[in-house]
Amino acid sequence: MNAGTARLSLRTPYLIFIGNQTDPTYAKTGLGLVQWCGDRVAGQLRFGEKPVDLGVPDLTLEAAVALGARSLVIGVAPVGGVIPGDWWDIIRQGAELGLDIVSGLHGRLATVPGLADAAQRGGGRLVDIRVPPANIPVGTGRKRSGQRVLMLGTDCAVGKKYSALALAASLQALGVKATFRATGQTGILIAGEGMPIDAVVADFVSGAAELLSPDNDPAHWDVIEGQGSLFHPGYAAVTLGLLHGSQPDAIVICHDATRRVVSGWPDYVLPTLAECRDLGLTLGRRTNPAIRCVGFSINTSRLPAAERAGYLRRIEEETGLPCVDPIATGCEAIGRRLIE
Amino acid sequence: MNAGTARLSLRTPYLIFIGNQTDPTYAKTGLGLVQWCGDRVAGQLRFGEKPVDLGVPDLTLEAAVALGARSLVIGVAPVGGVIPGDWWDIIRQGAELGLDIVSGLHGRLATVPGLADAAQRGGGRLVDIRVPPANIPVGTGRKRSGQRVLMLGTDCAVGKKYSALALAASLQALGVKATFRATGQTGILIAGEGMPIDAVVADFVSGAAELLSPDNDPAHWDVIEGQGSLFHPGYAAVTLGLLHGSQPDAIVICHDATRRVVSGWPDYVLPTLAECRDLGLTLGRRTNPAIRCVGFSINTSRLPAAERAGYLRRIEEETGLPCVDPIATGCEAIGRRLIE
Repeated sequence: MNAGTARLSLRTPYLIFIGNQTDPTYAKTGLGLVQWCGDRVAGQLRFGEKPVDLGVPDLTLEAAVALGARSLVIGVAPVGGVIPGDWWDIIRQGAELGLDIVSGLHGRLATVPGLADAAQRGGGRLVDIRVPPANIPVGTGRKRSGQRVLMLGTDCAVGKKYSALALAASLQALGVKATFRATGQTGILIAGEGMPIDAVVADFVSGAAELLSPDNDPAHWDVIEGQGSLFHPGYAAVTLGLLHGSQPDAIVICHDATRRVVSGWPDYVLPTLAECRDLGLTLGRRTNPAIRCVGFSINTSRLPAAERAGYLRRIEEETGLPCVDPIATGCEAIGRRLIE
Repeated sequence: MNAGTARLSLRTPYLIFIGNQTDPTYAKTGLGLVQWCGDRVAGQLRFGEKPVDLGVPDLTLEAAVALGARSLVIGVAPVGGVIPGDWWDIIRQGAELGLDIVSGLHGRLATVPGLADAAQRGGGRLVDIRVPPANIPVGTGRKRSGQRVLMLGTDCAVGKKYSALALAASLQALGVKATFRATGQTGILIAGEGMPIDAVVADFVSGAAELLSPDNDPAHWDVIEGQGSLFHPGYAAVTLGLLHGSQPDAIVICHDATRRVVSGWPDYVLPTLAECRDLGLTLGRRTNPAIRCVGFSINTSRLPAAERAGYLRRIEEETGLPCVDPIATGCEAIGRRLIE
C-alpha cells in the first residue's frame, strides 16, 4: 500500500539495479529511464560477468547514497520472473542505507523476507508502482483549470507513452509549460510520479484520472499517457475511465501503421483512425464539451522506409490534421496545432 | 478473499439477521430478500424490543440449522454503520454452528475478532459480497453460447435491478429459460450468486462480466443487472466493462421519469432515452454486432398517476418499442419482444 498519497510519487535521483542481467531485452525499464530522464539517474548497480551497461556511472550502494541517490529502482526483469536471492540481499542493503526501493514486479515488496524491517531501520519506503495509492475518490466530473491532451490508441502498445513524452518535449521546446502525466509503470518511473490506472478498482478509475491531472495554470498543458483502447474487448473500461477523468481539451490518436487486429485478440479488427477519433470525441464530450482532435501519431517503424512519408501525408490530407511518427518526425506539428 | 471461485456463490436457505433493529429503512436488504427470493429464506433472527418483522418465521440459530439453513445473512445496516458487540457475539455463535456468514458491510468479516476462528471450527465460510473472487481473467471477447439481455441506465438507481428481476420473472412465466445475473450486493443476495462488478480492478471488469454469464443453452436468456451509466462521470468505466463483457444480444434502457440530472452530480444533465439507447448500441456492437434494443423500463412512481399511461405510450410511439414500468405494468411486453 502506498497510503496517504494523492498519487504515486518517487524520490530521485535513481540508482538503477541491473544485477547480473546480461540480456538487454530484460533491462528495458532501465534503458528507458536513461533515455527519457537521464538527468535523474545517478548511476547503475551491476555485478557478475558482462552485465547490461546503461552507459551511466557504476556505483556502489554507499557511493550512490553519498551522491544523493534517493531510490533504488529495480530496472530489470529477471529471466523467469523470479528475483534471485543474492539480488534481494543487495536490495535489502540498499533499504538499510535509507534508499527507497522501487519495484514494478508482480509480487509486493513487503512480502520479501526482511525487506520491510530493513526499510524501517533505514527510514526509506517500499514503493510498488503497480499498486495505486489508497483512498482514491469517485470521479467528480468537476471542470479543472489548466489544459489537457490525452493519447487515445487504436490498440495497446502502439506508442502512446512515446507519443506523450515526445509531445511534452515538443511543447516545452516551443516555450509552453507542459507536464507528462504517467498512467503506466514505465511512465511512472520516467515521470517520478503518476497513477497505475489499470490497477485501480473500476468504481474509482475516473477519480484516479482526476487526481493525475489536478488544477493548474490556465496556460499549462498536461500531456497524459493513454492506456488500452476504447475498442479493446478487455481493456476499454480503463480507457473510458481515463478519458472521462482526464476531461481532455484535446486528443491525439495513436496507431501502429501495420497493426490490423487487436494484438492478442485476433478476432477483433482494429477501428479506422476516423472511427477511433470519432468515438473518442463522442465519449470525451461528456466531461469536456470543447474536446477536439489535434492530430495522429503513428508508429511507422514496420513500414518500408519508402512508404512512410506517403502514409503520413495521406492521413493529413484525409483528416486535415497533422500526422506524425513520434520517432521519425517528432511531435512538433501536433504541438503547434495544440497551441495555435 | 473468496478465492478459487469463478464468481461469488452463496449457500441457501438463508437465516436473516435482524438483531434489535427497529427501523425498516435499515432492513431493506432483508425485506428485498423476502420479496424476491422468499422461497430461499428459512427465517429471521431477532431480539430486543419491537425489532423489524420480515413476516417470516422467527428462528433461533439452532432451530435454523436444524431446518437446513446454510447462511446467516446480515440483513440490516446498523444505525451509524457500526455493528454492536452483542450482534457479533450472536454471529460468532452462528459461525460456530457451521453457518456461512454473509455480509455486505464495508469492513471485512475476517477482521472481526474471533470470527475467522469460529468459522474454521464450525466449518462454514465468511463471505464478503463486496469482495470479488480471486483470479478474474482479462476479458477474452470470445462469443459465448446462449442469449443475454443487459439493463442499461440513464443513471444509477433508476430501477435496473428491479427491471432485470421483473424481466427474468416475465420470461419464466412465458415458458422461457431465464436466469437473473446479479452485479451488485442486493442482487447477489437475491440470486445467491453473482459478481460485485464495481469492486473489480479496472483491467478485469469485462473479464468479470464474462464469468458472470457463461456459455449456456442456445435458447437460454441471462438477464443481467446493470450498473452505473455510460453517461455517468464517475462510473461509466464500470458500465462499459460490463457491456463489453456481457456481449448482450439485447439491451433494455432503464430510467426514472422525473430524473433530470445525474443523481449527486447536478452539473450533468441526463441523456435522452434515444441517446442512451444509441450509445449503448454503438459501444455494445464491439463485442456483439447483432445487439438490439428491445424496450424501455421506466420508474414512473414519482409521476402523477394520471400521467403515467400517457408517458409510457408516448415513448412507445416515439421508439416503436415496448415501454413499461416494471412495478406498475410489469415487464411482459419487453419479454415478448425479446423472444419474438
